[in-house]
Amino acid sequence: MQAYTVYNHMLLPAMFHSLEQDYHHLIEHVQIWDVSCERQVELKGPDAARLAQLMTPRDLGRIEIKQCAYAPLIDASGGIVNDPVILKLADDHFWISIADSDVLLWAKGLAHGLGLAVEICEPDVYLLAIQGPKSDDLMAAVFGNVVRGIRFFRFEKLPFHGKDFIVARSGWSKQGGFEIYLERPDLALELWDALWQAGQEFNIAVGCPNLIERIEGGLLSYGNDMTLADNPFQCGLEKYCHLDSNIEFIGRAALETIRANGISRKIRGVIFEQNPGIACQQAWPVFSEGDRIGALTSMAYSPRFEATLGLAMIDKACWPTGSKVNIETPNGTFAGKIAELPFVLQKTGKN
Amino acid sequence: MQAYTVYNHMLLPAMFHSLEQDYHHLIEHVQIWDVSCERQVELKGPDAARLAQLMTPRDLGRIEIKQCAYAPLIDASGGIVNDPVILKLADDHFWISIADSDVLLWAKGLAHGLGLAVEICEPDVYLLAIQGPKSDDLMAAVFGNVVRGIRFFRFEKLPFHGKDFIVARSGWSKQGGFEIYLERPDLALELWDALWQAGQEFNIAVGCPNLIERIEGGLLSYGNDMTLADNPFQCGLEKYCHLDSNIEFIGRAALETIRANGISRKIRGVIFEQNPGIACQQAWPVFSEGDRIGALTSMAYSPRFEATLGLAMIDKACWPTGSKVNIETPNGTFAGKIAELPFVLQKTGKN
Repeated sequence: MQAYTVYNHMLLPAMFHSLEQDYHHLIEHVQIWDVSCERQVELKGPDAARLAQLMTPRDLGRIEIKQCAYAPLIDASGGIVNDPVILKLADDHFWISIADSDVLLWAKGLAHGLGLAVEICEPDVYLLAIQGPKSDDLMAAVFGNVVRGIRFFRFEKLPFHGKDFIVARSGWSKQGGFEIYLERPDLALELWDALWQAGQEFNIAVGCPNLIERIEGGLLSYGNDMTLADNPFQCGLEKYCHLDSNIEFIGRAALETIRANGISRKIRGVIFEQNPGIACQQAWPVFSEGDRIGALTSMAYSPRFEATLGLAMIDKACWPTGSKVNIETPNGTFAGKIAELPFVLQKTGKN
Repeated sequence: MQAYTVYNHMLLPAMFHSLEQDYHHLIEHVQIWDVSCERQVELKGPDAARLAQLMTPRDLGRIEIKQCAYAPLIDASGGIVNDPVILKLADDHFWISIADSDVLLWAKGLAHGLGLAVEICEPDVYLLAIQGPKSDDLMAAVFGNVVRGIRFFRFEKLPFHGKDFIVARSGWSKQGGFEIYLERPDLALELWDALWQAGQEFNIAVGCPNLIERIEGGLLSYGNDMTLADNPFQCGLEKYCHLDSNIEFIGRAALETIRANGISRKIRGVIFEQNPGIACQQAWPVFSEGDRIGALTSMAYSPRFEATLGLAMIDKACWPTGSKVNIETPNGTFAGKIAELPFVLQKTGKN
């Protein structure tokens, strides 16, 4: 392993060979990812559904048992607290599969303050992701053909070594795949070995969320591209804000005001004319004709686009695709242009 | 820099030269630490004092403006949410200088649920620590002799470049020193340079919290030695639990039950007979006569004690000082004995 980060107080690998080698393998074959750091916040009890709904503007009444829902969590100002996937295990039982912030404390604080009848904990669950175009074949070899029938963002409980585990068609890439919610850490090595062995014919490799692939796909990273200072409208998440639904959630008034007034900045893609040749480790200011009009928070060179791609929070004047901007990096100022997210191949290419 | 970690979603250096070189320098001279990752949670408004008190069993009515208070934060079960230092800036204005968990979300959740009139945010404040026996001389050279009069865990607002900053006599070592709460990040380099230049005659060096020094001193690290699964009684923090005070705080009933029933495990020191020669990166099981009686979560070789010291959560039967235990490490099993915290020099030494 070449690099790791800390995510939800745990280690998360960030690179195994090189970003590009990991990327090519991910989009062609199948990878096994230790994403144990995707912690679960369990809500269980009479008020579990109410609390889950209070935490997100997405109408959870529309999701079924055995369904997963990507759902921004917001505070009373509409600021994004986290952008987890919520699993509905039963009408009174949810797991919130979180990005990098302590949703456990947010949920416990709310429940305590509101006097809700809900038990909240971080269960002993460890996620293992199988990602890449050969994921179905690999998973079928270990869990049986039943996995092929699992629809996107649905899950089934499937047996391994005599114990049922949640297997969901989900994961933090756009290459397809599954996430296995391992509730028996003592079986971790057996599960890994079974997948590894079955994966030999599919050219399996160890992997992790890949910076290039997730930027191409426009996947935002909580804590980097969006924070508590941003609202869902600014982050392209308006489709998960069901303001016209008759649901009660924290931040409704704020979101209604934001919708009525409109937003003045949002996340856009940026295509660099040249590779700045340095990793983006803190926000880079973005300028247009001398005015600071945004900040770029993620960046990677994409071999497929033959260009350096970035994600940036951009002021309204520069939203139109093709707008010319300058990005100030520690290696100097680089020219770029604004692009749609996710990045679309035919419209881009080397300058 | 040789090692860093991630703390409150920010980088925190962990070692500059070697643990031992950093240690010797810290206990003899003066160091400058970038501890910006000690984030502040600001509570301001009519209910600020009430919320602060709700979050901790320590009686905050006893602390004055310009005073700091080390105060465990607990949940309704008595589990430790964080162990910050709380600064009282005014009767309706507090900063919670946090360890590594998102207290911001806990406070916001409580305030929202309880409908409290308090504004909660993470202000743009960056901590710089000056630690070591020559701290007073260095700080006096930059801020004037007034710093010498600041009592332990008190603060003053002192000018630098025309702006007043909080300067507290505090810090995460037992060597004495100060923490500067820099509210103007644009002055960070000026402040650093002023301290660095004045520090030349005191042999200043760049440093960071030192594993050896903090274990010797019995300073627990939140997230490692104590977590939400532990209560203050188990962590030697009972003196901060003012159950006989007439204050309202979350977890009072739980703490009263715990006090009445007593605890069955607590943090104790461990002195190894030999150096296991490997860093403790996850909890190591501790045994006594074949029974698992605890877990060791921090460890370092102390040149001053000429022994490897550890911190471990230990079952009651083995609390007595001198109890013989065995610690299971990835390098094999090592013998050790239980010791008081903080470690006391005359009673220890090589086996």
